[in-house]
Amino acid sequence: MAVHTDVTDDELKAFVADYDLGEVLSFQGIAEGVENSNFAVRTSRGSYILTLYEKRVAAADLPFFLGLMDYLAARGVSCPTPLKTRTGETLRALKGRPAAMVTFLEGLWPRRITVAHCQQLGHALAALHAAGAGFPMTRANALSVAGWAPLLEATRAEAGSVKPGLAEALDTEYRELAARWPSGLPTGVIHADLFPDNVFFLGDRLSGLIDFYFACTDAFAYDLAVCLNAWCFEADRSLNVTKARALFQGYESVRKLDAAERQALPLLARGSALRFLLTRLYDWLNHVPDAFVIRKDPLEYWAKLRFHQSVDDSAAYGLA
Amino acid sequence: MAVHTDVTDDELKAFVADYDLGEVLSFQGIAEGVENSNFAVRTSRGSYILTLYEKRVAAADLPFFLGLMDYLAARGVSCPTPLKTRTGETLRALKGRPAAMVTFLEGLWPRRITVAHCQQLGHALAALHAAGAGFPMTRANALSVAGWAPLLEATRAEAGSVKPGLAEALDTEYRELAARWPSGLPTGVIHADLFPDNVFFLGDRLSGLIDFYFACTDAFAYDLAVCLNAWCFEADRSLNVTKARALFQGYESVRKLDAAERQALPLLARGSALRFLLTRLYDWLNHVPDAFVIRKDPLEYWAKLRFHQSVDDSAAYGLA
Repeated sequence: MAVHTDVTDDELKAFVADYDLGEVLSFQGIAEGVENSNFAVRTSRGSYILTLYEKRVAAADLPFFLGLMDYLAARGVSCPTPLKTRTGETLRALKGRPAAMVTFLEGLWPRRITVAHCQQLGHALAALHAAGAGFPMTRANALSVAGWAPLLEATRAEAGSVKPGLAEALDTEYRELAARWPSGLPTGVIHADLFPDNVFFLGDRLSGLIDFYFACTDAFAYDLAVCLNAWCFEADRSLNVTKARALFQGYESVRKLDAAERQALPLLARGSALRFLLTRLYDWLNHVPDAFVIRKDPLEYWAKLRFHQSVDDSAAYGLA
Repeated sequence: MAVHTDVTDDELKAFVADYDLGEVLSFQGIAEGVENSNFAVRTSRGSYILTLYEKRVAAADLPFFLGLMDYLAARGVSCPTPLKTRTGETLRALKGRPAAMVTFLEGLWPRRITVAHCQQLGHALAALHAAGAGFPMTRANALSVAGWAPLLEATRAEAGSVKPGLAEALDTEYRELAARWPSGLPTGVIHADLFPDNVFFLGDRLSGLIDFYFACTDAFAYDLAVCLNAWCFEADRSLNVTKARALFQGYESVRKLDAAERQALPLLARGSALRFLLTRLYDWLNHVPDAFVIRKDPLEYWAKLRFHQSVDDSAAYGLA
C-alpha cells in the first residue's frame, strides 16, 4: 500500500489553499502503489491526486517527471497533469517531503489482458513517444545497462537461494547484453514502466496512462520491449503471439519501427526482462515483512528472459 | 491500512452491474480503517464505498449494521446509506466475503479537536440517539461488562510487560465496575465508537458520521462517555473541561440527560476507558509486525481511567 506519511486535515487544507481549487470535500489515502504516498483529494472544483514522494524517488528527478507530465498533457496525452499554485509552482513540500498535486484520471486498470487492450496500448505508447518530441529535458535510464551492475552486486550472494545457479546465469546474461547492447536506435521520452496497473480503461477504451516516475530518455523500442514482457505473456509464462502482434500493430499504426529497431527487439526484450528480474530479486531478498506488500516473483522474468534468448528474429513476436 | 482482499476490475464491474449506478469510472483501495477492506468507487451516477467485511466483523451482525444505517439515513442522519441492488439486496458477497456498497460521504475528520467540534459532536450524537428510536432490531454491546472478562483473560499473562501491575489493577477495576455497573438508564441505538476519525466536517460544520460496525443497543449515556474519552482529553492526557462542557451542551440542546444518567457518567466513563484500554492492550500484545499499522497506546486509556476514578460528581466534566 502507499501511505507512508500521514497528512492531517489542517495540513491538507493549508496545502490546497495555495491552489485555486475551492473547498476540500474529501481526502483519502490510496492503498495502491508502493513507492510514494498517494491521496485522493476531492474539492468543489474536481478530483485530484496528492503525492508525497518518499525516499525511493530522487528529488532531483522530480522536475523532469512533473515537467514531462505537463508537456505530454498539453500535447493530448491523457495523463495526470501537475497543478500549479497561484504563484506557478508544481513541485512543493509537505511533511518534509517533495509533494505535488495532479489531476485525477478516470478508468480502471485491466487484470485480464485482452488482445484489444494490447492493440490500444501499442497505439497509446506510440502516441506518447510522438508527443514527447521536443521535450527539452533529458534523464538517463537509471535501470538500463549501467544500472544492472550494482543490482547484480547487491543480489549475487543470495540469488542462489531463489534459484540455484541464478547469480552465475545473470552475470553471463549481463556480460552478453552489455557487449551487444544496441546504440543509435531512435530515442526520446519513454515511460519505461508501462505495466497494466499504469494503464486505465473505461469500458473497452484506453482512458489514460499514469505513473511516470521511471520515465527517461531512451530507445523507443525498449519501451515496446517492456510492454511486450508486461502484457503479452500468459500465466503459464508463454508468449501470446496474437497479443504481441496486436501490440506492434497498434504501435505501428502511429509510428513505424525501422529495420534496426526490429532487429534489436529480442535483445531489448532480454534487457527489459533482466531489468525487472533484478529489481524484483533485490526486493525479494530485501523484503521487510509486511502482510500487505505482495512480493513479485522474480522468476517470472527469468522465464521471459529465457524465451527471448531463444528468439533470433522479431518474426517470433508476430512482427511482419 | 484497509485492503486485505484484492478485487479485480472485472469482479468489480460484475458486482456493480447489479445496481442501477451506470458505468464504473474509477476504483481505488482506501488506506484508512483497519478491520475491513474499503474501496472508493466512482460511477457515472456518483461516488460510493464498497466494503468487504473481513473476519473481525461477525457476518450475523451485518443485517443489524446495514439496517441501522438505512434506518438512520431515512430519518435525517448524515451517514452512509446502503445501496440496494435491482432485486432489493443490500448485503451481498464478493471474493467469498460479505460485501455491501454504501453512499460516499463528503468531509474530513479533524485531527486537531476544537471546542466547536465537541459542541457539534454532542448535537449529532443526541440526534443519532433520537433518530434510532423505533429501530426494530437489537444488538447487545459485545464490548460492555460481559465482553471485558475474556479480554482480561487473554491479556493477563503479558499485561505486566506494558506496565508493571497492570493486570492486577485491571482485575480490580473490572470487579468494581461489574458490581456497580448501572442498569435502567435510557437505552437505545448507540454508535459506541464515535472517535474523531468517524466524524466528518466540511469547513466548520459536522457533515456526517461513519463506521457503524460497533453500533449496538445500550445506554445513551455510555455513548457520551465514549465521546468524552475520545474527544475531550488533551495530548498531556488531562481533561479539557471546556470541550467536555461543549460536548454535553451540544447533546442537551437536543436531548436532556436525566439525573440517573448524570450520576452514572463517571462510572460509564471508567467503563468506556476500560473497554478501549482492553482492546488496545489485546492488539498491542497480539501485534503482527506491519510497518503500516500504528499500534494505539493502551496506556493513554489507563490515564483516562485513573482520572475518572477520581471523579465523584459529573460537575467535574463541566455538567451544570
